[in-house]
Amino acid sequence: MENLTEILNLDPNAKRKQFQKGDFLQRDGDFQASTFYVKKGLLRSYIIDSKGKEHIFMFAPTGWIIADLEALEFNEPVKLFIDCLEDSEIIIFNKDYLFNADLPKEKIVENTQLLYRRLGKLQRRVLMLMGSPAIDRYNYFLNTYPDLPNRVPQRMIATYLGITPQALSTIRGKIARSH
Amino acid sequence: MENLTEILNLDPNAKRKQFQKGDFLQRDGDFQASTFYVKKGLLRSYIIDSKGKEHIFMFAPTGWIIADLEALEFNEPVKLFIDCLEDSEIIIFNKDYLFNADLPKEKIVENTQLLYRRLGKLQRRVLMLMGSPAIDRYNYFLNTYPDLPNRVPQRMIATYLGITPQALSTIRGKIARSH
Repeated sequence: MENLTEILNLDPNAKRKQFQKGDFLQRDGDFQASTFYVKKGLLRSYIIDSKGKEHIFMFAPTGWIIADLEALEFNEPVKLFIDCLEDSEIIIFNKDYLFNADLPKEKIVENTQLLYRRLGKLQRRVLMLMGSPAIDRYNYFLNTYPDLPNRVPQRMIATYLGITPQALSTIRGKIARSH
Repeated sequence: MENLTEILNLDPNAKRKQFQKGDFLQRDGDFQASTFYVKKGLLRSYIIDSKGKEHIFMFAPTGWIIADLEALEFNEPVKLFIDCLEDSEIIIFNKDYLFNADLPKEKIVENTQLLYRRLGKLQRRVLMLMGSPAIDRYNYFLNTYPDLPNRVPQRMIATYLGITPQALSTIRGKIARSH
């Protein structure tokens, strides 16, 4: 995001922080949700369901923004755990500054594209979860996050796709054989 | 949406149209996706998967906006069928006018709330599809669409929740007995 510097200049409370692999940025039940820009590194957000099972909502490599938007928008306690899969340099800021009145109008309009595109991607994520075979979901994952298979354990990718690690291993075998 | 009139005044191509129950507003494969505001009535959007199974993405009663945002944002052919579950009065408009440069800046910033809130809701939909028991998903559906159970066939609600009509019937029985 090329205009991040502008936004940071607007937000007097924005903070730049270093985190280590394994560190938590927020946890289920926290009262104050934040928005995180990944300057360098890799974060993920996930929930743990009532049976103790983990479900990964998204990964956020360098350049991505990650947050619990439901908690932020509806002033609810945090539901998403956000932690570091690698040592990361993070900028914590208030998402309202993306649309702050001090920004030029053109910049505000430009930033709405970020939200529309994220909405388009989330629509696809819902539709694929409901109606696409796991192999299509995996191919779309590769398309979205081309270098993650080398950076993230297989079991986490399975948890993102909503399948078992065994099913993922079968899919990867099929793809390898077809090349 | 109280400022719809303003937006319609900005968009020279906005059209007001009457549709009958069963009419299609757009179909999978169409080249031009549109944005629909439901002035009165009830629409739904859905896909049909490769096995011929229907999956409902959302319902849009009076006051809602509905569109295939992935197709719109990424200039792709339409994937979502959108049709009328009741006779409906629809305004077809270009979503960019929600953030048109002729709107006052405060209005543009206000409209970004619509996108943030939708993102928060979609985040919840993904997380519930992945990790919540069907009864919680049904209760959340009732919360989002309190009067739809009387207006929509049970099989469609099941299709929205991603469960069988039999499972939905069991859940409704459980809820009825617990009151």
